[in-house]
This record gives sequence, structure tokens and C-alpha cells, in this order.
Amino acid sequence: MLSEQEIKELAPEIPSWIVHEEEGIKRLICSFAFSSYEDSVNFTNKVAKLAEEEDHHPEIVLEWGNVTVSWWSHKIKGLHKNDFICASKTDNLFKKQ
Amino acid sequence: MLSEQEIKELAPEIPSWIVHEEEGIKRLICSFAFSSYEDSVNFTNKVAKLAEEEDHHPEIVLEWGNVTVSWWSHKIKGLHKNDFICASKTDNLFKKQ
Repeated sequence: MLSEQEIKELAPEIPSWIVHEEEGIKRLICSFAFSSYEDSVNFTNKVAKLAEEEDHHPEIVLEWGNVTVSWWSHKIKGLHKNDFICASKTDNLFKKQ
Repeated sequence: MLSEQEIKELAPEIPSWIVHEEEGIKRLICSFAFSSYEDSVNFTNKVAKLAEEEDHHPEIVLEWGNVTVSWWSHKIKGLHKNDFICASKTDNLFKKQ
């Protein structure tokens, strides 16, 4: 599990994400905005595909105009470096659209 | 908006759903369990298709082993009869799998 210091060092790599602690578990969270539901659904499927490729599954909240993605590592109940990598890959999927 | 009494009368039609109030807004919520991520993703897409057909968009939370769907009516900040209809249609999509 990453230390507070390590999290502080990695955070600037993914500036659109926040670190949010819930029930003692830190998560990386980012909301992506879309102008149509179709775009929201397509992005959800892209993130789901990434999840399968990474064998690491975020929480994805699909709503009309936005998709909120949360990455954390269930096993360690916190943040691993891999969560930052997956967050960065999620940003890339968003930029590619 | 449905009254408390009307909600009580409609609730038995969709027994797997709970009525949950958050920030003063009542919602119908149900979690559907799946044994694979692929099944979770497929169900998410079916609910998203229903949302487009109904022009009514729930919150869909996609996780590894389950999909949580919440229906409520944004405009009236509460529950409309249509939310119960959409919840029932969501149940049907789950049964059809």
C-alpha cells in the first residue's frame, strides 16, 4: 500500500483525480462529462474493457451526462501504484474520444 | 410526485427494490449480482438501452460482481409512477438473461 508521501508524489501525474477516503479506504476518483448518453455509455464500455485487460475493476457510475470512475485496490484496502497507472490509462481513453 | 401512501401501495410490485431517501430525494434502488464481469457489463448495457428507450436515465453503478440501479425523477426530485415501471422493466431484463 502506498504511503501518504508516495501518494503526494504520484498525485500530480493525474491532476484531474482526487484522493477520497471512504470507510478508511483511499480511492482515486474522477468524473468525466459527456454531452450525450451514448457517449457516456461508450466511455463506460471502454473503461470496462480496460478493467478486463488490467484484471483490475474500478467502480463505474454511469449517469446521463457523466461517468465517475473510482480506482482502489480491494485486497490491500487502499491505493497501490497500479491504481495511479489505471487512472492515467482512463484519462487516455477519455482524451482519445 | 407519488405520496407516501402511493409508494407503499406500489412497493410490493417490485419486492427486490428498496426505497432510499438521500438528500431529501427518494429513489428506488436494487443491486443485481453476477458471477462474471462480462455479465455485469452486458446487464449495464441492457439497462442503458432501456434508459434510451424510456428517455429516462437511472444511475447505474458497475462493479465486478454486481450492478446497482437507482431510478428517480430528477425534475420532481422524487418518485413518479414511471420509476416503478422502469424498475419492473429492469427486473425483466435481469430475468431474461
